[in-house]
Amino acid sequence: MSEATGNIESNVRGYCRLFPAVFDTAVGSTLTDASGKTFIDFFCGAGSLNYGHNHPVAKAALLDYVSRNGIQHSLDIATKAKVDFLDTFERLILKPRGMDFVVQFTGPTGTNAVEAAIKLARKQTNRSHIVAFTNAYHGHSLGSLALTGNKYYHSEFYGSRNNVTHLPFDGYLGDVDTADLLAKMLADNSSGLPVPAAVILETVQGEGGINVASRQWLRRVAEICRQHEILLIIDDIQVGNGRTGKFFSFEDAGLEPDVVCLSKSIGGGLPMSLVLIRRPLDAWKPGEHTGTFRGNNLAFVAANAVLKHWADADFESQIASRGEVIQSWLKQVCERFAAQNFCYRGRGLIWGLDVKRGDLAAKVIRQCFQDGLLIEASGADDQVLKFMPALTIERPLLFEGLRVVDAVLCRVVGEETSPSDQALQVMPQLDLGSISSVGGSASMGTLGQ
Amino acid sequence: MSEATGNIESNVRGYCRLFPAVFDTAVGSTLTDASGKTFIDFFCGAGSLNYGHNHPVAKAALLDYVSRNGIQHSLDIATKAKVDFLDTFERLILKPRGMDFVVQFTGPTGTNAVEAAIKLARKQTNRSHIVAFTNAYHGHSLGSLALTGNKYYHSEFYGSRNNVTHLPFDGYLGDVDTADLLAKMLADNSSGLPVPAAVILETVQGEGGINVASRQWLRRVAEICRQHEILLIIDDIQVGNGRTGKFFSFEDAGLEPDVVCLSKSIGGGLPMSLVLIRRPLDAWKPGEHTGTFRGNNLAFVAANAVLKHWADADFESQIASRGEVIQSWLKQVCERFAAQNFCYRGRGLIWGLDVKRGDLAAKVIRQCFQDGLLIEASGADDQVLKFMPALTIERPLLFEGLRVVDAVLCRVVGEETSPSDQALQVMPQLDLGSISSVGGSASMGTLGQ
Amino acid sequence: MSEATGNIESNVRGYCRLFPAVFDTAVGSTLTDASGKTFIDFFCGAGSLNYGHNHPVAKAALLDYVSRNGIQHSLDIATKAKVDFLDTFERLILKPRGMDFVVQFTGPTGTNAVEAAIKLARKQTNRSHIVAFTNAYHGHSLGSLALTGNKYYHSEFYGSRNNVTHLPFDGYLGDVDTADLLAKMLADNSSGLPVPAAVILETVQGEGGINVASRQWLRRVAEICRQHEILLIIDDIQVGNGRTGKFFSFEDAGLEPDVVCLSKSIGGGLPMSLVLIRRPLDAWKPGEHTGTFRGNNLAFVAANAVLKHWADADFESQIASRGEVIQSWLKQVCERFAAQNFCYRGRGLIWGLDVKRGDLAAKVIRQCFQDGLLIEASGADDQVLKFMPALTIERPLLFEGLRVVDAVLCRVVGEETSPSDQALQVMPQLDLGSISSVGGSASMGTLGQ
Amino acid sequence: MSEATGNIESNVRGYCRLFPAVFDTAVGSTLTDASGKTFIDFFCGAGSLNYGHNHPVAKAALLDYVSRNGIQHSLDIATKAKVDFLDTFERLILKPRGMDFVVQFTGPTGTNAVEAAIKLARKQTNRSHIVAFTNAYHGHSLGSLALTGNKYYHSEFYGSRNNVTHLPFDGYLGDVDTADLLAKMLADNSSGLPVPAAVILETVQGEGGINVASRQWLRRVAEICRQHEILLIIDDIQVGNGRTGKFFSFEDAGLEPDVVCLSKSIGGGLPMSLVLIRRPLDAWKPGEHTGTFRGNNLAFVAANAVLKHWADADFESQIASRGEVIQSWLKQVCERFAAQNFCYRGRGLIWGLDVKRGDLAAKVIRQCFQDGLLIEASGADDQVLKFMPALTIERPLLFEGLRVVDAVLCRVVGEETSPSDQALQVMPQLDLGSISSVGGSASMGTLGQ
Repeated sequence: MSEATGNIESNVRGYCRLFPAVFDTAVGSTLTDASGKTFIDFFCGAGSLNYGHNHPVAKAALLDYVSRNGIQHSLDIATKAKVDFLDTFERLILKPRGMDFVVQFTGPTGTNAVEAAIKLARKQTNRSHIVAFTNAYHGHSLGSLALTGNKYYHSEFYGSRNNVTHLPFDGYLGDVDTADLLAKMLADNSSGLPVPAAVILETVQGEGGINVASRQWLRRVAEICRQHEILLIIDDIQVGNGRTGKFFSFEDAGLEPDVVCLSKSIGGGLPMSLVLIRRPLDAWKPGEHTGTFRGNNLAFVAANAVLKHWADADFESQIASRGEVIQSWLKQVCERFAAQNFCYRGRGLIWGLDVKRGDLAAKVIRQCFQDGLLIEASGADDQVLKFMPALTIERPLLFEGLRVVDAVLCRVVGEETSPSDQALQVMPQLDLGSISSVGGSASMGTLGQ
Repeated sequence: MSEATGNIESNVRGYCRLFPAVFDTAVGSTLTDASGKTFIDFFCGAGSLNYGHNHPVAKAALLDYVSRNGIQHSLDIATKAKVDFLDTFERLILKPRGMDFVVQFTGPTGTNAVEAAIKLARKQTNRSHIVAFTNAYHGHSLGSLALTGNKYYHSEFYGSRNNVTHLPFDGYLGDVDTADLLAKMLADNSSGLPVPAAVILETVQGEGGINVASRQWLRRVAEICRQHEILLIIDDIQVGNGRTGKFFSFEDAGLEPDVVCLSKSIGGGLPMSLVLIRRPLDAWKPGEHTGTFRGNNLAFVAANAVLKHWADADFESQIASRGEVIQSWLKQVCERFAAQNFCYRGRGLIWGLDVKRGDLAAKVIRQCFQDGLLIEASGADDQVLKFMPALTIERPLLFEGLRVVDAVLCRVVGEETSPSDQALQVMPQLDLGSISSVGGSASMGTLGQ
Repeated sequence: MSEATGNIESNVRGYCRLFPAVFDTAVGSTLTDASGKTFIDFFCGAGSLNYGHNHPVAKAALLDYVSRNGIQHSLDIATKAKVDFLDTFERLILKPRGMDFVVQFTGPTGTNAVEAAIKLARKQTNRSHIVAFTNAYHGHSLGSLALTGNKYYHSEFYGSRNNVTHLPFDGYLGDVDTADLLAKMLADNSSGLPVPAAVILETVQGEGGINVASRQWLRRVAEICRQHEILLIIDDIQVGNGRTGKFFSFEDAGLEPDVVCLSKSIGGGLPMSLVLIRRPLDAWKPGEHTGTFRGNNLAFVAANAVLKHWADADFESQIASRGEVIQSWLKQVCERFAAQNFCYRGRGLIWGLDVKRGDLAAKVIRQCFQDGLLIEASGADDQVLKFMPALTIERPLLFEGLRVVDAVLCRVVGEETSPSDQALQVMPQLDLGSISSVGGSASMGTLGQ
Repeated sequence: MSEATGNIESNVRGYCRLFPAVFDTAVGSTLTDASGKTFIDFFCGAGSLNYGHNHPVAKAALLDYVSRNGIQHSLDIATKAKVDFLDTFERLILKPRGMDFVVQFTGPTGTNAVEAAIKLARKQTNRSHIVAFTNAYHGHSLGSLALTGNKYYHSEFYGSRNNVTHLPFDGYLGDVDTADLLAKMLADNSSGLPVPAAVILETVQGEGGINVASRQWLRRVAEICRQHEILLIIDDIQVGNGRTGKFFSFEDAGLEPDVVCLSKSIGGGLPMSLVLIRRPLDAWKPGEHTGTFRGNNLAFVAANAVLKHWADADFESQIASRGEVIQSWLKQVCERFAAQNFCYRGRGLIWGLDVKRGDLAAKVIRQCFQDGLLIEASGADDQVLKFMPALTIERPLLFEGLRVVDAVLCRVVGEETSPSDQALQVMPQLDLGSISSVGGSASMGTLGQ
């Protein structure tokens, strides 16, 4: 199938090459293309559709709001939709977690939130340096790009390397506790690392290859920041909004960050971004960081609708139970493909199957698309298949999706293997029956694996 | 009236201080707050509402799209909504103007478009420097901020001064042709100005104080760029989309830029941004500049609806005729307030009344708000009242808005004048009758004033 | 003649290509090569030999010092040689000029002095930006290189463009007072020019093409700096030490700079550099800017010897009288070569003959070398022949040198002219007799031409 | 004793505070101040006096050269003195080591050599990034300062953090092989570390605290550089010129660097710097990196004289034997001061005694000065006493100097210890007799400890 927009759209287009269809409608965890073919969604808008497509409560709220001429664009003027969202966010998210934070609405993209966060940290501390980590992904505008590890996104001519040091993330050097290096370099007046304004990190690196920081490492980094009066910024753009099982990805580790970036799913699928700032650190002057689309009221309306899930005591356990299904299956897969050295990582409902080679992952993705499933890869070489269904995915769809991937893996790996290697070719299909009985009883946890 | 969100929103909030109401609904050129009070809109979402609030065609299209579960979030996957928008944009905007450009969808904020544009220019030319102009405004993420003149937005700790030189905009040094300096510095191997990747400019500087570049200056700059193989980037975020009378602000001058940034009104009031790239300059590799919200389908739907205006031969003349009204009134005002040295500048439907003092402009804005009109200021000291109604504003509303400002000006300036200065106090009210007869016959033009 | 060191020395070597001899000894204004051929020196070590080669007082002092095992290398430990130099410098230079400055010894190169000066200015003001001028030359280490205009010395990969803006030098835009642009940009909060830590300038741009700033422009720039509390740094490395007729080049204009960089001739021909800092601005902490060779005692000894000239009331008038000779001759030359549009510029004993084309200047230089004279060119295209003899050059040698250049000019220009252009070919030789009667009576001055 | 120059010299002066005398003459390893007091030199001009003060062969050559009016200043024109130096350097240093390098003369300071080296690497590779190491010291001009770790030398306002990453030096993380991090980050496309133009390192970090890189680590780093086509720059400014026992500090490890920076002792005590460039990497254009004092002929003359030592087969063994004396003594000291956790590090004739506290080291230095010995400290907190006598120091002077330090250590540590701690107070004096019998037989080595 040829690409629909190739003649008029810039060569920069990407996902439309991976998923070469023209999509039309979408509900929950399925999308339908213009020809009527339906796809299961394990891709989830790269983390923006935690509540699925066209969630009924969001849809109803949007229809009502547009019908009654609700104001749609408002910069940072107060609107009823905004006030309502803020009330809900404070009541359901901040207050129950004892977080005394103020909310900054930035331009509704993740990179805008990151830019605002690092500017604030620099202003607030009167320091210009930022520490980020290996395999970090924080966006593409030049301030955020400086923090983003992947070489593919950089050019010598961008001038984007200033005032940032990348240190090794948890697990980057095997058993070495990489927080030691941060601690040592900060304690050493001659290390070459200036005391930074901030340390910024993702607790699970989504684009970086589903690298999961352990609780202990996160706490140690937080403690080091506190000692040196460095702001700790958690970029929860991809793994916040419930993706790891709780609303914020850092709750499990008991972190108390200074600044939190939220985007992607916070707007219920519509563009919206927030920077949460510990109240005493709110050093902004009025209007000092602006942006035209900070007031996307349709997103406020949708966000307000979907946030209600967090008042439902059962929602977190549902996420956990779905995560267990994926984890169990991944465990089986890695045992079966032991010869290929596959391995898996993840937390909550974000999981990675590292198939070690980008070309192999690409084959799997292409075949899955043919077979009706959207899934993407991440990691430095796009070698990690990324399992990120909606938090609300129905269990049968989840199982069906895993069945598709399982079959494709067998086929693709089988094709690579010589005919005499019978073991793989006769590999039994996944027993999803056994997995489906696991369910909500198990503890969530592989944090810290 | 106290601010509704002051307790939970960051101190960075701005416009809600200027317009301290909680707005609820909006139609065309009026907004209504939660208490039922109605305001005329001369502010226009800082240029994002060129077609007014909740334009009927956009509203209908949105209701239909949401109702039938149209896909809302799609990154840069092809969707029917996107394909339709691209077809319309190519048919109504690019083709009729003979523009062989490809379209890049960036994150849906202006600053994202600017970041993409300057990154592309740097990649394409293998040069890192950019020339911007005095009083330029291009956004707040660090790459764009480097191009933005206003000191208020900068901090020594941002590290945001790299690889950019600001040269004097047209008119910055009175009669001196400031393009001479650009030409001289580029011709001189020892000027200290490296050959830049790009020159970026707004043909009318909106935030900078409604500074209008003349046709001749624009053409000269374009010619200099061509000589040195420098990309010319037009930031048409605020003054494109018809604001100056034609779809692109540079059409009048006959410019053929290499890259054009569009945002604000392009999405019919919803977040959306485009970078238009002359086809041979499309140096992007697939996925090299990404962003989660490049596929805001609700904006594609609204954009597709409102773009139809450009097939209507009468639309441009309607804009011109409304602009004439404002210009005529401004002329009168400046004559009446000759003692205060007020002056005015503008093109199409973007006009500035320079009252020379930021505090005076602030008084006028506050009083206008009390009297039911939203208007803002721009310029280095916020000393220029900015008249930017919707392109579709009904003439009676336009007159009514001007009447409000006129009365406020008289009162505010009168209060500042000693009692014996009778001339001003008995100044007759504006004769809008005479202006209303001007209308569509006159030529548009003050370009180049 | 082939180059003596071409096989082992890096391709970066330069002057040895222009003057391809192996020099051995040198006295006053003549050099002798290994074959015994003697050259007149109009090049003067690029300004480092204002007192000529091996000045007798310096030579005697050095022989004495080395003989008695005077300490040669001392970092910034106090030595008798250093104390003596400081006493002399304070007594003969600073005190008589009412300058309450402290002295910083930097590494003994001009670029080291400039680096120290701009670092100090940044520290002292807590600002990072520096304003330099078109055609400026301040050195090649990366901090100084950022201030240096010539493109030939830059690379996109050096990362050397940070925190510097080049504004037009005096005369850069013909009749436009370029100080207006500096004033306007600093007064305008939205110009894009941050308030800089410092403005750095050469009163006469030596490498830039012998561009002479007028007294009025210098005073205006100084006044603008004072208004905005910007440090004024005078880079007097090439044109200080008496080159323009007084010890400092800024004395004539009555400037009171905040920081002065000295190098080149300050060490009597040996490596030495100073930064003079207005006492209240001395923000350095002990040892904060260091360098191994700050204590070159042989240079202190030579400097102490040659500085004695400044106690001699007659020295300044001698410099002036020699300058008059060159100026008179240049005036004649430009009249004779009116068809070629030659023009000249200068002050004191630094003069430029702009022959408009780098290849023409190169021909003249090569032929002069053949005829026994060392002279170099400067300017963006090396199109300006640079007359910079020792301040102590004997009048007959000066006349002889000018005669060489005059004859070469006639020959080289003649060769470029068609045979029928007889006027030039029979052009009479320079009447240096008339010039030699000019002498010391005339006022020095072409400052401000 | 008050400082001699405190009234007129900038507050930046440093060593004159540590050694508050006015020195006058100096021969070999002793200096004499203006009052006639004599000091033993363990400081060695921070590494610039490897051949001692006023070495007889250099002194004789200088007297002869000055007497006969040898040209002193010559930029990069060829002179007989320069040609002679180059011949000697090629014959005695490069050829015997099989090094096919070209020589670049930079401004005669170490930082100038480093600036030239990193500019060349960036030009040659078309990459802008440089990797340096923790505790690195490469100078104070802004390009070199970016590579220098010590925070004391930096300011947020210098803008000096660009395009450099500091990675952990050998031993920085205890048993972890820190080359693993370099290897991993370079192999990982998403590490955030761009492929740098160069890795720059000191094989023994002098200012950083006498940190000795092991042979294995050096070879591994060299191998990693080769794999990624990264230039390896050895900054041998302080530890080249024989300081570690061979002419270059990297000879022992068998490294083949791409670029070598030499300064300090290369000029026999006079200012001189070289960059050695592997011939195919000599990407300079003529005159692309210049500097006025590249042609310091007095330094060429002195250098030529002292280099002759390297033809003497015995010189390296003499250095080794002197190093053994210091090492043996340090070993004793650390055993005696076991309670204080003193430790020592070094190679050849550069040794550090880490007394763990900067204030303690400062006390020792002050008391040594009183007792007639010059010694300084290095390290992040100036906690490492640095033993760096001339390579030519007579053995009795070396012993005498060690006796002074030994006695001072006992006294100063004793004063800190309670009266009842008799063990230390009655500690026997060092038995230098036993050490003096060690001598030249032992192998040099602690490289790789």
